[in-house]
Amino acid sequence: MNPDHLLVRADVARPFCQQVFEAAGLSRDDAFLVADALIDADLRGVSTHGLVRFPIYVTRLRKGLVNAKPQMQVVRTKGATVVLDGDHGFGQVVGAEGMRRAVGLAREHGVGMCAIRNGTHLGALAYIAAMALPHQMIGITLTITNPVIAPWGGVVPKLGNNPLAVAVPAGNRPPVILDMACSQVARGNLILASKLGKTIPSTWALDERGQPTQDPDAGLRGSLMPMGGHKGAGLALVVAILGGLLAGAPFGAGCGDIFDMTRPQRFGHLVMALDIAACCPLPEFLQAMDGMIRDLKSSSRGEGVEEIWMPGELEMRRREERRRDGFPVSRVVLDEVRAVGAEFGVSWPA
Amino acid sequence: MNPDHLLVRADVARPFCQQVFEAAGLSRDDAFLVADALIDADLRGVSTHGLVRFPIYVTRLRKGLVNAKPQMQVVRTKGATVVLDGDHGFGQVVGAEGMRRAVGLAREHGVGMCAIRNGTHLGALAYIAAMALPHQMIGITLTITNPVIAPWGGVVPKLGNNPLAVAVPAGNRPPVILDMACSQVARGNLILASKLGKTIPSTWALDERGQPTQDPDAGLRGSLMPMGGHKGAGLALVVAILGGLLAGAPFGAGCGDIFDMTRPQRFGHLVMALDIAACCPLPEFLQAMDGMIRDLKSSSRGEGVEEIWMPGELEMRRREERRRDGFPVSRVVLDEVRAVGAEFGVSWPA
Repeated sequence: MNPDHLLVRADVARPFCQQVFEAAGLSRDDAFLVADALIDADLRGVSTHGLVRFPIYVTRLRKGLVNAKPQMQVVRTKGATVVLDGDHGFGQVVGAEGMRRAVGLAREHGVGMCAIRNGTHLGALAYIAAMALPHQMIGITLTITNPVIAPWGGVVPKLGNNPLAVAVPAGNRPPVILDMACSQVARGNLILASKLGKTIPSTWALDERGQPTQDPDAGLRGSLMPMGGHKGAGLALVVAILGGLLAGAPFGAGCGDIFDMTRPQRFGHLVMALDIAACCPLPEFLQAMDGMIRDLKSSSRGEGVEEIWMPGELEMRRREERRRDGFPVSRVVLDEVRAVGAEFGVSWPA
Repeated sequence: MNPDHLLVRADVARPFCQQVFEAAGLSRDDAFLVADALIDADLRGVSTHGLVRFPIYVTRLRKGLVNAKPQMQVVRTKGATVVLDGDHGFGQVVGAEGMRRAVGLAREHGVGMCAIRNGTHLGALAYIAAMALPHQMIGITLTITNPVIAPWGGVVPKLGNNPLAVAVPAGNRPPVILDMACSQVARGNLILASKLGKTIPSTWALDERGQPTQDPDAGLRGSLMPMGGHKGAGLALVVAILGGLLAGAPFGAGCGDIFDMTRPQRFGHLVMALDIAACCPLPEFLQAMDGMIRDLKSSSRGEGVEEIWMPGELEMRRREERRRDGFPVSRVVLDEVRAVGAEFGVSWPA
């Protein structure tokens, strides 16, 4: 492990975060939910969406940019669809409410869809999508974000990295949980390379003239490369429509950066649930999933490849280990997290 | 234009194909639909899915691998969902029936979903997805295909290129129509490079050991690179589930290649329609679409970029030109097409 990191136990970090969120005005349930989502990301190794986000989450809450007790309202509803105004609550709170509604609608109609406006940074989407799994449903979550990707051929970031997640239950195997953004890599990778004085692969970013660059600073001044070039840019555009415009959420510059302390983020989200049993007998589907996973995982591997992983599988395996052993957090981040707690009279256990 | 190509008029080619399909047993409506879908692809410049497919389509029909008059059956239905058995009809016929049903369900429930088993090569997905547009709905189409992509880390093709299409109406602007496969490029590009003795970019294919290759023949023996690496492989897997397993369609090797004359293809498809007016006032949405498109198209362009295109826009502009001027077809393909017609007593107009 990196010597600048400490091992932190989930059952220490989660209640700590929960207490701070409660002290900052969230209900007990909502405080647990946001805390659990952050810690779950660290457990799964998605540390960009873990404890490192805790200080900014609390800061936005204190500035009133995130609503501690959002008055979520149904804007309209028809059949298997509902549009929800998230009232600037935490993305996890609003997203979970969306999934609860989508699952309820899917139980009745086979499919359920909740389009959300006035949401906020949703955290790791896998967490929301996976909420459909205990219901033996497929969960789908899309969200828009602030602009980081240029339209294909352009140089100015106009599209978010607009991630999407799909969670599908299996039988005896772990579920398949795809969670991916439409940029080739996260912006954090460019920031890290810049700090370390390293070059980046030319597939990560475009400079201000729209040319692939190996200079992370040029990439930070330019835009993130969409995954698969024009295809990823097209996918980001479709997510901007389905996850944003459809719910009446803004586009592009209308969506605030999490570090912009002048306005709420106004993100849109789309949350869907598909009831598998509406389409085919559940045991048959789960068996087919297991068969597919077995076929893929047992197929011939490339040179140097030790295992073929299903989407989300490595993260779930890591979560098991880290639940037992703790997860690594940098000292710098942990000091910040503790300092935030101290301001609310919540101390980190010795 | 390539000297080996001739210009063909849509209003000549379409009735020709329709007559042949009718002579081969299709109803007049279905014959028109399949012919129109092929010609539409050529008009839009998606020539891989145009007239070049006509001979193999007719061959499969004559061999009984595609059913001229499929008895499509509802396997089950619940609320906003329906599962359809396509009875090995042409993908266009089965897919269009799926979209008709999805649109009908969406009118009632806000969203409609049709999962299809025993489908066939669907042609250009944009054609099916766009059928939702006159209803002021968003159309979504996914299909599985025979294996061409290896699971990430693997070397054996197990996943189809599993394309997806999303069509969204705009106000005064053309609709946005994304239609993309999960491979970085189509296999046809490797075949062409091999014929021409050219190398390929190392982002197109993996060799038999799972390493990126610039040798098209090594790529043809290996697998197609998923777009955006592991992300595209993950997306292909999710499409295999949503577009296949959910409807009870097979996975991987269970899906037949169009050139395999020993069995039907047994493709699965998923067709969805979202009724925009269920989520927000239609005029507001169309205005938001126009605003987004205007913002993207007017933003600063990279060096050498003449115009920023929305997904599907270039194809729609090309269609207008080619409706007027005709579309290019290679002499070799046209000779084949005419020969097929002659076998049915249908002659190509002078």
